[in-house]
Amino acid sequence: MNEPRLRELLARVQHGKIDVEQAVRELKHLPFEDIGFAKIDHHRALRHGMPEVILGTGKTPQQVAAVARQLLKQSKNLLVTRGSPQVFRAVKKVARAAEFFPLSGAIRVWGDRTALGKGRIAVVCAGTSDIPVAEEARVTAEVMGNPVDTLYDVGVAGIHRLMNNRERLAAARVIVCCAGMEGALPSVVGGLVSVPVIAVPTSVGYGASLQGVAALLGMLNSCASNVTVVNIDNGFGAGYVASMINRL
Amino acid sequence: MNEPRLRELLARVQHGKIDVEQAVRELKHLPFEDIGFAKIDHHRALRHGMPEVILGTGKTPQQVAAVARQLLKQSKNLLVTRGSPQVFRAVKKVARAAEFFPLSGAIRVWGDRTALGKGRIAVVCAGTSDIPVAEEARVTAEVMGNPVDTLYDVGVAGIHRLMNNRERLAAARVIVCCAGMEGALPSVVGGLVSVPVIAVPTSVGYGASLQGVAALLGMLNSCASNVTVVNIDNGFGAGYVASMINRL
Amino acid sequence: MNEPRLRELLARVQHGKIDVEQAVRELKHLPFEDIGFAKIDHHRALRHGMPEVILGTGKTPQQVAAVARQLLKQSKNLLVTRGSPQVFRAVKKVARAAEFFPLSGAIRVWGDRTALGKGRIAVVCAGTSDIPVAEEARVTAEVMGNPVDTLYDVGVAGIHRLMNNRERLAAARVIVCCAGMEGALPSVVGGLVSVPVIAVPTSVGYGASLQGVAALLGMLNSCASNVTVVNIDNGFGAGYVASMINRL
Amino acid sequence: MNEPRLRELLARVQHGKIDVEQAVRELKHLPFEDIGFAKIDHHRALRHGMPEVILGTGKTPQQVAAVARQLLKQSKNLLVTRGSPQVFRAVKKVARAAEFFPLSGAIRVWGDRTALGKGRIAVVCAGTSDIPVAEEARVTAEVMGNPVDTLYDVGVAGIHRLMNNRERLAAARVIVCCAGMEGALPSVVGGLVSVPVIAVPTSVGYGASLQGVAALLGMLNSCASNVTVVNIDNGFGAGYVASMINRL
Amino acid sequence: MNEPRLRELLARVQHGKIDVEQAVRELKHLPFEDIGFAKIDHHRALRHGMPEVILGTGKTPQQVAAVARQLLKQSKNLLVTRGSPQVFRAVKKVARAAEFFPLSGAIRVWGDRTALGKGRIAVVCAGTSDIPVAEEARVTAEVMGNPVDTLYDVGVAGIHRLMNNRERLAAARVIVCCAGMEGALPSVVGGLVSVPVIAVPTSVGYGASLQGVAALLGMLNSCASNVTVVNIDNGFGAGYVASMINRL
Amino acid sequence: MNEPRLRELLARVQHGKIDVEQAVRELKHLPFEDIGFAKIDHHRALRHGMPEVILGTGKTPQQVAAVARQLLKQSKNLLVTRGSPQVFRAVKKVARAAEFFPLSGAIRVWGDRTALGKGRIAVVCAGTSDIPVAEEARVTAEVMGNPVDTLYDVGVAGIHRLMNNRERLAAARVIVCCAGMEGALPSVVGGLVSVPVIAVPTSVGYGASLQGVAALLGMLNSCASNVTVVNIDNGFGAGYVASMINRL
Amino acid sequence: MNEPRLRELLARVQHGKIDVEQAVRELKHLPFEDIGFAKIDHHRALRHGMPEVILGTGKTPQQVAAVARQLLKQSKNLLVTRGSPQVFRAVKKVARAAEFFPLSGAIRVWGDRTALGKGRIAVVCAGTSDIPVAEEARVTAEVMGNPVDTLYDVGVAGIHRLMNNRERLAAARVIVCCAGMEGALPSVVGGLVSVPVIAVPTSVGYGASLQGVAALLGMLNSCASNVTVVNIDNGFGAGYVASMINRL
Amino acid sequence: MNEPRLRELLARVQHGKIDVEQAVRELKHLPFEDIGFAKIDHHRALRHGMPEVILGTGKTPQQVAAVARQLLKQSKNLLVTRGSPQVFRAVKKVARAAEFFPLSGAIRVWGDRTALGKGRIAVVCAGTSDIPVAEEARVTAEVMGNPVDTLYDVGVAGIHRLMNNRERLAAARVIVCCAGMEGALPSVVGGLVSVPVIAVPTSVGYGASLQGVAALLGMLNSCASNVTVVNIDNGFGAGYVASMINRL
Repeated sequence: MNEPRLRELLARVQHGKIDVEQAVRELKHLPFEDIGFAKIDHHRALRHGMPEVILGTGKTPQQVAAVARQLLKQSKNLLVTRGSPQVFRAVKKVARAAEFFPLSGAIRVWGDRTALGKGRIAVVCAGTSDIPVAEEARVTAEVMGNPVDTLYDVGVAGIHRLMNNRERLAAARVIVCCAGMEGALPSVVGGLVSVPVIAVPTSVGYGASLQGVAALLGMLNSCASNVTVVNIDNGFGAGYVASMINRL
Repeated sequence: MNEPRLRELLARVQHGKIDVEQAVRELKHLPFEDIGFAKIDHHRALRHGMPEVILGTGKTPQQVAAVARQLLKQSKNLLVTRGSPQVFRAVKKVARAAEFFPLSGAIRVWGDRTALGKGRIAVVCAGTSDIPVAEEARVTAEVMGNPVDTLYDVGVAGIHRLMNNRERLAAARVIVCCAGMEGALPSVVGGLVSVPVIAVPTSVGYGASLQGVAALLGMLNSCASNVTVVNIDNGFGAGYVASMINRL
Repeated sequence: MNEPRLRELLARVQHGKIDVEQAVRELKHLPFEDIGFAKIDHHRALRHGMPEVILGTGKTPQQVAAVARQLLKQSKNLLVTRGSPQVFRAVKKVARAAEFFPLSGAIRVWGDRTALGKGRIAVVCAGTSDIPVAEEARVTAEVMGNPVDTLYDVGVAGIHRLMNNRERLAAARVIVCCAGMEGALPSVVGGLVSVPVIAVPTSVGYGASLQGVAALLGMLNSCASNVTVVNIDNGFGAGYVASMINRL
Repeated sequence: MNEPRLRELLARVQHGKIDVEQAVRELKHLPFEDIGFAKIDHHRALRHGMPEVILGTGKTPQQVAAVARQLLKQSKNLLVTRGSPQVFRAVKKVARAAEFFPLSGAIRVWGDRTALGKGRIAVVCAGTSDIPVAEEARVTAEVMGNPVDTLYDVGVAGIHRLMNNRERLAAARVIVCCAGMEGALPSVVGGLVSVPVIAVPTSVGYGASLQGVAALLGMLNSCASNVTVVNIDNGFGAGYVASMINRL
Repeated sequence: MNEPRLRELLARVQHGKIDVEQAVRELKHLPFEDIGFAKIDHHRALRHGMPEVILGTGKTPQQVAAVARQLLKQSKNLLVTRGSPQVFRAVKKVARAAEFFPLSGAIRVWGDRTALGKGRIAVVCAGTSDIPVAEEARVTAEVMGNPVDTLYDVGVAGIHRLMNNRERLAAARVIVCCAGMEGALPSVVGGLVSVPVIAVPTSVGYGASLQGVAALLGMLNSCASNVTVVNIDNGFGAGYVASMINRL
Repeated sequence: MNEPRLRELLARVQHGKIDVEQAVRELKHLPFEDIGFAKIDHHRALRHGMPEVILGTGKTPQQVAAVARQLLKQSKNLLVTRGSPQVFRAVKKVARAAEFFPLSGAIRVWGDRTALGKGRIAVVCAGTSDIPVAEEARVTAEVMGNPVDTLYDVGVAGIHRLMNNRERLAAARVIVCCAGMEGALPSVVGGLVSVPVIAVPTSVGYGASLQGVAALLGMLNSCASNVTVVNIDNGFGAGYVASMINRL
Repeated sequence: MNEPRLRELLARVQHGKIDVEQAVRELKHLPFEDIGFAKIDHHRALRHGMPEVILGTGKTPQQVAAVARQLLKQSKNLLVTRGSPQVFRAVKKVARAAEFFPLSGAIRVWGDRTALGKGRIAVVCAGTSDIPVAEEARVTAEVMGNPVDTLYDVGVAGIHRLMNNRERLAAARVIVCCAGMEGALPSVVGGLVSVPVIAVPTSVGYGASLQGVAALLGMLNSCASNVTVVNIDNGFGAGYVASMINRL
Repeated sequence: MNEPRLRELLARVQHGKIDVEQAVRELKHLPFEDIGFAKIDHHRALRHGMPEVILGTGKTPQQVAAVARQLLKQSKNLLVTRGSPQVFRAVKKVARAAEFFPLSGAIRVWGDRTALGKGRIAVVCAGTSDIPVAEEARVTAEVMGNPVDTLYDVGVAGIHRLMNNRERLAAARVIVCCAGMEGALPSVVGGLVSVPVIAVPTSVGYGASLQGVAALLGMLNSCASNVTVVNIDNGFGAGYVASMINRL
């Protein structure tokens, strides 16, 4: 309910076009609709300029497909995260063009490929085991309208692999950086560039990695000041906020 | 050592202007200088376009002042974080124009007030106890060349205070959002705007706040996708990365 | 063993109706019975005015059914929490009218639907993944004799969804509020109403949600003073204590 | 901004008494005032029927006194929690009748002693070291208009001390129960009564008490279903929510 | 290698019955034998007067049976803890008389039923879900030669169930007390008796029980001074040390 | 209120010596007295055969002295734990014979030195920094009537120091074993003897010792089955329970 | 890119043998090759003198086999850690001589058995359940060219088993020491020898072992100064660093 | 008590030079002496070839000086760690040549400067705040007879500072690497060299650094296989074990 619409509504009251009760009802009306098990919020797309994203876990394939069908009436692009092959098959039925990314479980409908980001987003990861999280970030950034450059398996214990790719890092406007275990990569990357680095700790590792908490703590304590952090394994969130920054 | 300088160096070798040993030495030479207890890295200013920042803790007032004197030869702006009144007095001697912000301990020399950011940064905090951290973010963002709008004491338990200021939130290009206790503010703010929100957990609270860990965990789990997080009480980091985003 | 019964017993001793040994035995006798693997405590129903509730986990379907049969001799209402379909089938055999709620695993026999609560209990949850816990709270509150109003999927990142339902919140005499991830919902709800809010952290989330600990800590640190907290995923406990408050 | 006032406002627009711009401004206006370092929210008193409470930590004595002066214009009762003797002296200057409770640091102005609660609140604690937290709960409940019965030093390792006071427990409409160390008291008390028990873990103990976390975890896992929990040492919160329940 | 044997050995050297090399070898010889994957330590039985106990997890049924066969050459009693039905079948083949306790997975050969303890050991538990751990303690104490009195389902939220059994508690020389969730039972029991109480936290519970850590912390902070604690779910350890105390 | 007294009371009712109301009052009467800030429980001495012990922290010197004076009317022995020199001076005034142990802060009145334990208690500690905790255990065990043998600075990294004292270990009926850092000593000691070992983790260490949590966890996981554990730095509790075992 | 090769390259530029662009390209070229899902770093073998090791988890059997085939072109020795039987079968197809160690999941190709270490490495473990981790260390140390002496099941609760093997410990140049539960073995071993001890905490245990965290903390707090620690269950890392030390 | 001395002793028994009782006494005699509050273990020097080191905390200056005086009778070198200026003054009185290192509190007597290590030890640290810990490592390594090369303030966010010093790293035989905050330095250093790296987490940082736990976890999860870890801030331990390795 933004200010112009409010003014317009009040003007209609002023001019007697609607009465008070109608105005109250309209003021209360907000454009989201209820399909039983979840309120779909089309406002979010308006506010953020990005389509609703469906979290694939904790819903049946049928529920995901129903939400997807509803959302695709408003948007040509759609993202389902952490979907299973079963979810993909259900979504495929309501959206022929849907792609499946099995490492991350992402399901994507990418009907509108307009470039919305102003530059390139680099998605970097430390080891091959971090690729599923990096992939989720990449798929998200792409469907949000950004060209993405991926740079995988450039962990800090073989620092020359990273140093050899400094130009690709330098060419990015925003960087998403995924790492598990000690989570040191964002600090090194952050020191090499002068753009924001979104760090994603991954749950890769064992024992004292504490399911990604070690990497998370490491990244929060990064000595590079251009690093911010999202939740463990949250490739989607990193791709989303990188996209938002890239549109600024 | 960027590529054009490398080409130029190699060309000088090619043309016999310098010999191999000189080239090796020059390739090794990097522009940082050693003043005994800390290597000052002027490269960082070049890379990030921002002056070196001195962490005031763990150094004597004399050490901070010595580093400050050195840095001020290269830059008109300087920031010392977490300084004591003693540190301020020492810095004051090498920089007459230094300001002191006692809540946060920030010390600032703000000689060059050129606007470098493209929009406004909003610094928001939940309660009055969060103001020291918010202040650190504000002072940082200002010295980095950004107009800042502050919005304090708008915690979620009195949600109308936040709702009443939606326009000020909407006017910002980047938002820094500080909160302790349950750390819920960034989720609500994130849902109201379509720009990046840098969340700063503060150590405000007691008992189960675990010195800010509760707020930190809350922010990492934010259901708003445009939220990223920095370390507990890291107002500086939030102001820094917000400045970097605001220059994009 | 309350005071009137004690007086009456002592009077019988005084008047020689029973001898000392009988009195000692009677003083020792307490009205619970032993059915082998669990002592059923009918006293609790007397004390709390609520039927015994059976925790469905850690017991075989046959054990649950046996306890249920015993309890239904004393009460028309019964609740089994966290039951499996197998447990439901076993209970169904001893109670034809039993209902099964598959999301939460609740099994309910609701023979006596007398309204015992003085007002309405609102059960609110943040996301669709929190519904199983909210359902457990609702089913509990209903079987304890309360009208329940449910308000689902009103998480804080889309604050207008909550604001649009302020009147329903305001109409409740007690509120149960379930949320996972950052657990911010009870703070916002608590600020909007002037009745007690029972917060239930859920284990919804991943990574730094630490199986609901993030939400739990957030709720314990709520800046709204009318919020109290129960264990992670303890929808039953919230529904129970809300019912008790609603009878006051 | 409640519905009747909205209707009335819209009616004024309809009847041409105010124009659209005035209506927009009025819709935006909310009754809180800004005194520089903290927004005082008189709305909260309206919503909750309780005066604003000032957290004494993190503010200078002068700041507390200034807020107190402002609040006492609206209310005869006032509570400052966790105040020092210095804070008390400053408050004393703006409120002659202020009392100081040195164990808990509570400062109370209790001008209006109308009974607002419908029954009695019992405040129970396990050991003498828990008394400061219990006192904060008692002082809060009293200033909110409740008769309070205190029952101190009745820890579970001497269970007869508790059993001897069952009647006093039974006479309460709500119970606040404070305990440190293993935090077992609320479970025993909860089993003895049929009213809500607000459990307050205290930071009493050492070593594995982890500054009250052991007691907190114990209370969250209480096997008594009528127990809810507030933050460690949060006597105020317990007294507040008990008062709210006691008014229902 | 005790002192008398040492003297006797040295005397044999002195008298030329054995030479130096033989003495060195003999000094090095210690009475344990190696059966490939585990050193069986018959010394322990000598030292502690109790048979070796086999931990059933992390070994194949065949390995357990092989160790059992070896041990039964030295002792008529044997205990395998945490065995599966498969392990039981394998042990049954080498020991016809073996019993299986499916709740706890204990396997017992109880050939020698001599009473070795001087009094009775009471094994107490809070809820029916704690019975597996209590059973392990009981089976252990019995096979170590102690009469055991079990008192199950006497949790603190129904304190009269415990109070009704005070005489049985008072009749014990040592008490093992198992409880999950808040782990409050040992504090209450400890306050009622004047004998040592071995507290066993169980992993019963969910959410903030943290797999038994809540109960463990509670017990370590017990306000009853006669309580000591063993590891979570360590019914065996509690039964063992209770047996050792009961022989004193 | 034990059974014989109950019978006797009921007999008096039966024979008309007292009326019902008197009986009720007498049944309710329990022998503890209230001195304002703490209920002193003389029952505990009867039940446990040990004097009340006063925790010196969280009380003023005057409060400790007042409780001490009261207790010394019933008992010749008294223990105050964690007292300061100020507390000692106050206690000294009400008990001339009081001793002060500055390492642990223990204050002892040892008027009755009757030997009550059946054997010797060994108090063992790993390093010199653990001596304060060991001293608290020793002082406690002595005042409870036990001969004590102390064996200090025998940590496991110099295992021969422990091995050289095996006979002294073997001569004890119960062992208290204090260790910080890795807390390994109880496992080695437990393996060398066949009597109960009470392990006391100390907060000695730094960094990953986590104020004694590392030692606590180590002891709870001891591979020696005769080890039970008390709270970090709880020398008193270990001495107390060792005394209780030694009286069996 | 080492200094001699740099000089030689610059000399070629100087002498006009290559032009600047070729030099830049060559400077950028580093000897690793990309096989799609993982960059294989032959440099590491050069730098560390040890073959690349493949972590078997998080890769398909086919991926492991493909990497293995590539690596075996450069080296006669290869190690896959944490492989399944499926992975082994796939590797077996590209390396006939591959061995499988089912306890640890190690897969080894040991074509070149040259002794590279200067002494013997002892691999010690506390209990039979620690053998899988010890085996991983042994297999690693062997394939890196070291004679290994294994000493299993010598936990500290039966200290004589360890003392009986002091000579074997003394004969080692480096010791790897694996233990779960309380993790005390490295402290005792460290005190007995004067060589480096690499401690490996294992996840053996239950309850308060916290999946190996208890052992990890214990080892980090070892009172023996010659102990360093690797991650929980990281037998490979311990064997690797022991090999590296043994080559010095 | 080594084997040759044992043989010699037994031979003396065999030849009648000493009788059995003398042999028993001699076998029991071990060369450590007791000076009241601490057993000094000269064996350790024999076993490890290094002097006893005194931990300065938890002892009075007089106690430290007394132990120092005793130790200096056996050794020309001595190290006191974590000493205060007061401790230094006391030690200075018994050892004129003692040096004090105020950053780390190390006190050193360095009478014998023989080089015992075979190569050079590099001590590297990330930031200037890590220097105290690095200094402790350096002082330790020097007094143990090693040439030390220090490389300070080379944290990973300015990776070129480290890369510029690769040759100095490559010249070391062992590396000690100290870092706080995210603790990433050892991974990068480990990848650059082929010698063992001893990682020392420091407690430098704030908030989510959790007093060094973040750095500790990072280092334990290092993706460089040549990294082992010691306790937080344990510069001494790192210098000690590096010295031991450097003597191999």
